[in-house]
Amino acid sequence: MRKSIAIDMDQVIANMYKKMAVSYNELFGTTFTEEELLRAPRESMTREQFKLLMEKLNEPDYYREMDILCPHAVEVIRELNERFDVYIATAAMEVPNSFNAKYAWLLEHFPFLDPQKFVFCGTKAVIHTDYLIDDSLNQLEVFKGQGIIYSMPYNEHVEGYPRVKNWLDVREYFKTV
Amino acid sequence: MRKSIAIDMDQVIANMYKKMAVSYNELFGTTFTEEELLRAPRESMTREQFKLLMEKLNEPDYYREMDILCPHAVEVIRELNERFDVYIATAAMEVPNSFNAKYAWLLEHFPFLDPQKFVFCGTKAVIHTDYLIDDSLNQLEVFKGQGIIYSMPYNEHVEGYPRVKNWLDVREYFKTV
Repeated sequence: MRKSIAIDMDQVIANMYKKMAVSYNELFGTTFTEEELLRAPRESMTREQFKLLMEKLNEPDYYREMDILCPHAVEVIRELNERFDVYIATAAMEVPNSFNAKYAWLLEHFPFLDPQKFVFCGTKAVIHTDYLIDDSLNQLEVFKGQGIIYSMPYNEHVEGYPRVKNWLDVREYFKTV
Repeated sequence: MRKSIAIDMDQVIANMYKKMAVSYNELFGTTFTEEELLRAPRESMTREQFKLLMEKLNEPDYYREMDILCPHAVEVIRELNERFDVYIATAAMEVPNSFNAKYAWLLEHFPFLDPQKFVFCGTKAVIHTDYLIDDSLNQLEVFKGQGIIYSMPYNEHVEGYPRVKNWLDVREYFKTV
């Protein structure tokens, strides 16, 4: 029986921070780089700032123009899709206005994936796959299969999961399973 | 540990056929009742008719005005939500323009549910809950937990699943688990 892999969107296949850095600087008059924002602790943002930023992210077309995070993501996912049931599982319920843009983005960049395997959810406790590739510790902790952590500055301290730094690492990991 | 229940939307909590009967008659100049349409084999529709109907269902606001299917659905789900992790799992990927209307409909009718437990998916093979209440044999067959079939004329022949005819039946079923 084919094994299954769920793949997160933001900061795993979609470069959200690149676009978010522009929005952040526009909103707050700052000049942070994408890298600086990735390393900034969330607590450095006030509640009000966080709210404003989430409102921006929830604009209907916000997700439409994101770049692919890693140049190898598409080719590796295309390969995995030959051997595994590949799902995209994204926590879209936090930004419900993004549904359509996320769907269109997936169709554009991953036309070989089956939309019947796209999942817009909240908590990934509900995802029933063998593997989940995610950058979020919160999601990996509630997922019941084998979590794989996609390295980001804000999860560098996390232990207990196989760690991948890019999509070539993902290819390597799945060569042996 | 709390057990979890996934609940389908169309013809389980939302009365899709009531609205669809109106659309069907408008599209094709017929005078079918909701009950007649529920009993009509899908093969009685031509490919072209089915396509037109799906286009109608995929209009952005189509899902917004559906009625609750059964008068007891809300109260029973409210009760279940006290004892179980209640998810709503709907095959929204077939009608991607419906995402926002489905989300708004759920917030309106089930304000006590946690949107982090709304799941817009395709196949329910990916749903990791203990139970799934669904009218679709296709979905029950791929689901890996305990399926419960919500009776509709088009699934009357199906055996092998506990059968509920309305939400009072659902209440009874979960009294004993």
